[in-house]
Amino acid sequence: METIVFNKPYLTGKEGHYIYQAVLSGKISGDGIFTKRCHELFEKKYGYKKCLLTTSCTDALEMAALLINIKEGDEVIMPSYTFVSTANAFVLRGAKIVFCDSRKDHPGMDEDQIEQLITKQTKAIVPVHYAGVACDMDKIMALSKKYNLYVIEDAAQAIDSYYTGVDGIKRPLGSIGHLAAFSFHETKNIMSGEGGMIVINDEQFFERAEVIREKGTNRSKFFRGEVDKYGWVDIGSSFLPSDIIAAFLYAQLENLDEIQQRRKYIWDTYYNGLKSAAESGLFKLPEIPNYATNNSHMFYLVFNNSDTRKEVISKLKEKNIYSVFHYISLHKSKFHLSYNSEVELEYTDKYSECLLRLPMYFELEPKVVIDALLTIFNQLNKK
Amino acid sequence: METIVFNKPYLTGKEGHYIYQAVLSGKISGDGIFTKRCHELFEKKYGYKKCLLTTSCTDALEMAALLINIKEGDEVIMPSYTFVSTANAFVLRGAKIVFCDSRKDHPGMDEDQIEQLITKQTKAIVPVHYAGVACDMDKIMALSKKYNLYVIEDAAQAIDSYYTGVDGIKRPLGSIGHLAAFSFHETKNIMSGEGGMIVINDEQFFERAEVIREKGTNRSKFFRGEVDKYGWVDIGSSFLPSDIIAAFLYAQLENLDEIQQRRKYIWDTYYNGLKSAAESGLFKLPEIPNYATNNSHMFYLVFNNSDTRKEVISKLKEKNIYSVFHYISLHKSKFHLSYNSEVELEYTDKYSECLLRLPMYFELEPKVVIDALLTIFNQLNKK
Repeated sequence: METIVFNKPYLTGKEGHYIYQAVLSGKISGDGIFTKRCHELFEKKYGYKKCLLTTSCTDALEMAALLINIKEGDEVIMPSYTFVSTANAFVLRGAKIVFCDSRKDHPGMDEDQIEQLITKQTKAIVPVHYAGVACDMDKIMALSKKYNLYVIEDAAQAIDSYYTGVDGIKRPLGSIGHLAAFSFHETKNIMSGEGGMIVINDEQFFERAEVIREKGTNRSKFFRGEVDKYGWVDIGSSFLPSDIIAAFLYAQLENLDEIQQRRKYIWDTYYNGLKSAAESGLFKLPEIPNYATNNSHMFYLVFNNSDTRKEVISKLKEKNIYSVFHYISLHKSKFHLSYNSEVELEYTDKYSECLLRLPMYFELEPKVVIDALLTIFNQLNKK
Repeated sequence: METIVFNKPYLTGKEGHYIYQAVLSGKISGDGIFTKRCHELFEKKYGYKKCLLTTSCTDALEMAALLINIKEGDEVIMPSYTFVSTANAFVLRGAKIVFCDSRKDHPGMDEDQIEQLITKQTKAIVPVHYAGVACDMDKIMALSKKYNLYVIEDAAQAIDSYYTGVDGIKRPLGSIGHLAAFSFHETKNIMSGEGGMIVINDEQFFERAEVIREKGTNRSKFFRGEVDKYGWVDIGSSFLPSDIIAAFLYAQLENLDEIQQRRKYIWDTYYNGLKSAAESGLFKLPEIPNYATNNSHMFYLVFNNSDTRKEVISKLKEKNIYSVFHYISLHKSKFHLSYNSEVELEYTDKYSECLLRLPMYFELEPKVVIDALLTIFNQLNKK
């Protein structure tokens, strides 16, 4: 019986070639030829004002926290149903995290609940485009204007996905907030094992972003000949990935359209193959709001309860098919509760207990998974 | 006329092969098969208690700062003649940096000046093994015991280098302090473009190091089956490099002895080729204290004044040979002086103004550089 893993990194074919090209260029530290090519391609394709590759999406979020000067006591609003780094990047700078519940129809944060969470201490809102599906950015940007808050898009899963606002303009995710963070972790549509990128849409951050990414030095200015020596001018870290990583990513990026086409096929096959079964009421299929596109990052089901999810995971495993769940809600985590009191977040808990992610990668043939699921659902419905 | 660059990354031949092996393993995110192989090889070869690859030496130092719980107001003693990350890693957590001067005979910090810098706020000493040459660790560890301070070895340049204490035991650098940080930046003896490693010698940090490196989660425990789900338990970041980086590094690490032999040949050729010229008094050759080995990371000259250094750099450049200087002293940096008053550090300034690094990489044939230098020195001595 064939094993179907949950995720499998995909090689487009040119990764190794580009890595050797990087080595032969004589520079494989950060900001080599492939890092620059990635920056240019992202900026051209999506119209982002400035892109900077980082070693991870976590690091891109940490850069964002440094750029907006998060200090002890500042509050940052974000969903609880997200990866731990969304929160930790701000906690590292002293922020208090204020968690917002998910939407009833979608794991993304409920935009209508944000305003009541804003206080005088609030400094930023961090919407997470869960599964690459846009949050309602008109609502969030309106709050940002009204209360003078920064918006940092956690676009970890959101490459090549779009939001259409009330003005009818279709904007790529990551281009709307002041700053945005992307992930190229191996589970993402395009990837480099570990990897990330910060997108800077607010020009006030251009210069300082370069400094913070270069260990707090004005080295970038030096290489452009704008200063005659470079030194320590700010806090910062080493956020640059090796050009080996950028070379790998560039090969993926060149094949983005082909990758997206294939993922879209897998997503649609899952959706159409499971549509009738969903009518039994055992689980729900993903819902994509009108203003959002679907970048086919993830295919998930939401079961009625955690027991059913547990049973499905286990029965799939018997058939050598590996499905996974996430996230353990951050508002209930040991770490958060050691500094904060408990809040009730109904839908966060629901997704945390009932959402299941199906295998999703370029080379997957989803039919085997669909057939297995249909058999399992038949058994469960007969109970 | 052939161009001799300052640094050139060296391929041992198996880097690409190992990268494909990593991809075929189905996992190129952090802690894949090559990351584990690197950890095991480092632990076995040098007897380090626990090794964890990081995305850079900067990140390893930041992990160290998190592990020893650096807080606002804590003081950390380190040389001023070092890379900015040595300081920034601790400044990010709120530390005040107290700079110690370099030694007269060596750019490393003057161990005899440390004690007078210790206050009630001092939490750690960060010796930097400059050019891979050991600091006098007996003196530093004695201060650590006397005042209950952590010692974090900045071993960025110090792979495969040793210290022999008064007890006669020869210990690898990075194995003596409570924690140590290594760099695999492309200028280092073995490298992965960007890359680093934290070495943990004090067992109290074993468990928390894994948590901090895994974004503040107990994921490592989960994978070992010690907990049944993992969650947010601490602050942390994404310090893991992609397994692509580890695969590249592993190919280098397997060839460490060959690399070291070649670098040793280059270093000795430089030393012997320039020995007579040094008698003119125009410059000094590196001095290696008796208790230290030389890992041939760097070959440098110390000129009598900055004008001579400037002239030599310029004359080498006319011959298409690229030499570099560093560091702009941290105690005089714009950033440090915005929070601290100026101190006088005589030898730090001297090395900052007069030290010159010669080209140094596996494929270098040093004779061309030596001949060029001898011609330049002859001209200078005739002036």
